[in-house]
Amino acid sequence: MSEERTEISTLGEFGLIRHLTDDNETRQAGTLMSVGDDAAVIDHFGKQTVVTTDMLLEGVHFDLMYTPLKHLGYKAVAVNISDLCAMMATPTHITVSIGISNRFSVEALDEFYQGVYAACERYQVDLVGGDTVSSLKGFVISITAIGEVTPNKFVTRTGAQVNDLICVTGTLGSAYLGLQLLEREKRIFLENPGVQPDLQQRSHTVGRFLKPEARTDVVEWLIENDIVPRSMIDVSDGLSSELLHIVTGSKVGCVVHEEKIPVHEEAREMALEFGLDTTTCALNGGEDYELLFTVAQSDYEKISRSEQISVIGYITDAQEGAHLITRQGNKHRLVAQGWNAFET
Amino acid sequence: MSEERTEISTLGEFGLIRHLTDDNETRQAGTLMSVGDDAAVIDHFGKQTVVTTDMLLEGVHFDLMYTPLKHLGYKAVAVNISDLCAMMATPTHITVSIGISNRFSVEALDEFYQGVYAACERYQVDLVGGDTVSSLKGFVISITAIGEVTPNKFVTRTGAQVNDLICVTGTLGSAYLGLQLLEREKRIFLENPGVQPDLQQRSHTVGRFLKPEARTDVVEWLIENDIVPRSMIDVSDGLSSELLHIVTGSKVGCVVHEEKIPVHEEAREMALEFGLDTTTCALNGGEDYELLFTVAQSDYEKISRSEQISVIGYITDAQEGAHLITRQGNKHRLVAQGWNAFET
Repeated sequence: MSEERTEISTLGEFGLIRHLTDDNETRQAGTLMSVGDDAAVIDHFGKQTVVTTDMLLEGVHFDLMYTPLKHLGYKAVAVNISDLCAMMATPTHITVSIGISNRFSVEALDEFYQGVYAACERYQVDLVGGDTVSSLKGFVISITAIGEVTPNKFVTRTGAQVNDLICVTGTLGSAYLGLQLLEREKRIFLENPGVQPDLQQRSHTVGRFLKPEARTDVVEWLIENDIVPRSMIDVSDGLSSELLHIVTGSKVGCVVHEEKIPVHEEAREMALEFGLDTTTCALNGGEDYELLFTVAQSDYEKISRSEQISVIGYITDAQEGAHLITRQGNKHRLVAQGWNAFET
Repeated sequence: MSEERTEISTLGEFGLIRHLTDDNETRQAGTLMSVGDDAAVIDHFGKQTVVTTDMLLEGVHFDLMYTPLKHLGYKAVAVNISDLCAMMATPTHITVSIGISNRFSVEALDEFYQGVYAACERYQVDLVGGDTVSSLKGFVISITAIGEVTPNKFVTRTGAQVNDLICVTGTLGSAYLGLQLLEREKRIFLENPGVQPDLQQRSHTVGRFLKPEARTDVVEWLIENDIVPRSMIDVSDGLSSELLHIVTGSKVGCVVHEEKIPVHEEAREMALEFGLDTTTCALNGGEDYELLFTVAQSDYEKISRSEQISVIGYITDAQEGAHLITRQGNKHRLVAQGWNAFET
């Protein structure tokens, strides 16, 4: 955070909105009406509109002790764009609503919006609306992302067919390990405030947690290569949970091979350091925001040309259930280690 | 609230979402993909997409002591639809995100969603997405409403022209007086918990505050009668503030006649009881969710056929400023008595 501190109350509600949106650029030809009226107007020129939304609460979804506000702004946008990717949609617009207490200065909000605008530029989306309200306590973020698809070319979770190949992008488990590292360094810092953590050596895992990217690149590559996945979801809760969404929704089963699950070298080192199993991190860790999808076997050759995509298993009959085959050849049933946010 | 209490933790996150959306119906032919995937897919069949969003926080925007959860759900949807009306758009879809602490039971959430679904039915919109997260404290609501307009037939705040007639729907000031009554009864109740408030005699004002309606009826009437307003906004912050948005945005001035401002009989009685001036309530009260718009003088005859619309003044040159002519013939400059939510 910069050293200057301007109280939000000096700007007032409308002044604050003007301040935060003054440099807002529009990139999309379809943006007919942006920030500043009762609503935004978008022309999708005959394409279908795709909409997703996420709410993030301080203390539940993020910890400002180790999350820079700029990264938070970027991540809040990226995770919504990831949901659009999971429909094979092209992101076009976002709205950003925030609730903030007077603990936050205008400079702090500027940092958050720098991250939001950086994500807008990276993903070529326009910020076209939102709401800025005062909260009694804590930082509240709600983002809606809007995209478009060629009519009926969207991909759901429910279209997987028996013998489909199960594919995943990038590597899994890194974000979870990055979070473990940040949590450990936070504990050390709270005990010894003089110790500054050195996270430089762990920039991959920490980066994957703090500043994930949505895989718009993979969606574009699939479209260019004329590959239409039969089912698709993004990996926000861990591979197990997402696979179970696909097999349950599609009324099929699956087999995944442990040795095929892509894990980054730094994540392996970190897992060793923390005494964790990398496969468990990939299956249950979450927050990787990679894409999980299934394709017909006939697409295998095309898919294998991408270094970003790993084939990790295949779809079976529903009766087979959902299983992982370990490196040792053992068969384990996949379960959603769903973290229950509502448990006390 | 009903007497049963089911803990949210007994359902888990996905179970809760299923429970809340099990009876979700779709009414719009354009709803291709609703709740249950990564995103919703909407076909607007060549029309343009209109998007607006609002965030409501417990303790800031609503007080659960006198706000029934069902009314809250209804109002949260209606106020967003009102923003779509203010663009002359037809509402089609909403997403509803909530953050809730374990203070809330499943039954309490059911009541909130009953209100949401009642609004969906009233306004013929589909609930197509959202997010359900746990909060550390308090109830957080974020709603995005999506609508459609015939290409380029939307109406902004910035199109008012000199000599336009200024029109407003319904009556103003009632919601503010309803809020004053509820706040007074709350104070009395806190001092004497045995006293039950009798709000029956004040159902108009209390109703206008707790369960406002969006003026989709007026938008439809304007379209049917081929009247295209030149500028339009909804009255959420009070007539003064909204008029100033129009005249500033359109670079014009205005004259409004106090005697023409429509006020409901019950609001007049209530204002007398509270020692308040009805015109002040209309100018600065807010939360009426009526529509304020300007039309060409040539539309006067058509406009005068609607009992729902009052002509309250006219647009002038920017140099004239923005003024109210009182019943006594005095001229007062209009100022936005903007309540600054960020002041401590």
